[in-house]
Amino acid sequence: MKKSIGPETLLYPTPVLVVGSYDAEGRANAMTAAWGGVACSKPPCVCISLRAATASHGNIMARRAFTISLPSREQAAAADYFGIVSGRKVDKFAATGLTATPAELVDAPYVAEFPLAIECELLEVHELGLHTQFIGEVKDVKIDEACLDEDGHIDVGKLDPLAFAPETGAYFVLGALVGRAFSLGKTFVTEGSS
Amino acid sequence: MKKSIGPETLLYPTPVLVVGSYDAEGRANAMTAAWGGVACSKPPCVCISLRAATASHGNIMARRAFTISLPSREQAAAADYFGIVSGRKVDKFAATGLTATPAELVDAPYVAEFPLAIECELLEVHELGLHTQFIGEVKDVKIDEACLDEDGHIDVGKLDPLAFAPETGAYFVLGALVGRAFSLGKTFVTEGSS
Repeated sequence: MKKSIGPETLLYPTPVLVVGSYDAEGRANAMTAAWGGVACSKPPCVCISLRAATASHGNIMARRAFTISLPSREQAAAADYFGIVSGRKVDKFAATGLTATPAELVDAPYVAEFPLAIECELLEVHELGLHTQFIGEVKDVKIDEACLDEDGHIDVGKLDPLAFAPETGAYFVLGALVGRAFSLGKTFVTEGSS
Repeated sequence: MKKSIGPETLLYPTPVLVVGSYDAEGRANAMTAAWGGVACSKPPCVCISLRAATASHGNIMARRAFTISLPSREQAAAADYFGIVSGRKVDKFAATGLTATPAELVDAPYVAEFPLAIECELLEVHELGLHTQFIGEVKDVKIDEACLDEDGHIDVGKLDPLAFAPETGAYFVLGALVGRAFSLGKTFVTEGSS
């Protein structure tokens, strides 16, 4: 039996996206967002939604670029901190002891110690209400070599990304592998139907 | 040391979004998408990105509504199947034995057996390239009562949602709780900085 809980903003899980940007003086900022995801395969695009009140919002509008750094399990506290304080008040990199590395292809910094960084050029801006949605075209993805398997593919276990649960505000690691896409579901495919 | 892997579309984890819609004849369809997320808090909005070639794309453009049903671990095979075959060729509900329930507030069906359903009215359409991004305003969320704790909050453990890893195409369940948002990161907060 289902119960109606009203028009809540939730989805399980959301990613933990640490958004990197530079301000007008070239100071690096990072903030954590759970509202976002992949938006398009060609051109490769991701989307992130930020409130206009955030420092990052102004930075991205001005510099037309941002990065997304994905934290691992052991970086959860730093990632959470990036979402608590404002970059207008503190140097979050100094506070966490993490390193802001300039992206190679776009005008934004990423978190050097986090295992995966996505370099994005701002493509579109959608004013949706409390949040502005930024569509970023992915110019490059950089990953720690230690997170690749021997064939050069991403080893999700080594990447060890965080998953977020809105409402409860819980960070989880990934658990057991259930199966593979385009394989698990074949049990329902009958001849000539796919 | 980071290695550049080019402009890939990836993010870890993505959600497993089963998108429900009706075709012109009122036949229920469901397809699985990993490209999407929460887009705005006020009005509450989610986004999903679909290729124009899909049956669901045409359905949503015509009916201006869709739902998102979130599968649990034991529904992974059905969710994967919804992403393998086209609703133009088969009745996916009949094939899986699952039930298409009409949403209460929007013109789209959801998967009755999946624990969480989000009813969305189409708000904006963004043509990004290979994918069209649909912004849906959340009109209601419905959840199985068995997934609520005694205080009426969502129990993520009982919901037991799937997380997806692009590239490797792996479905995972959520694992260990790492900590809580706006709490874990307080270790870095110094007086007067937040």
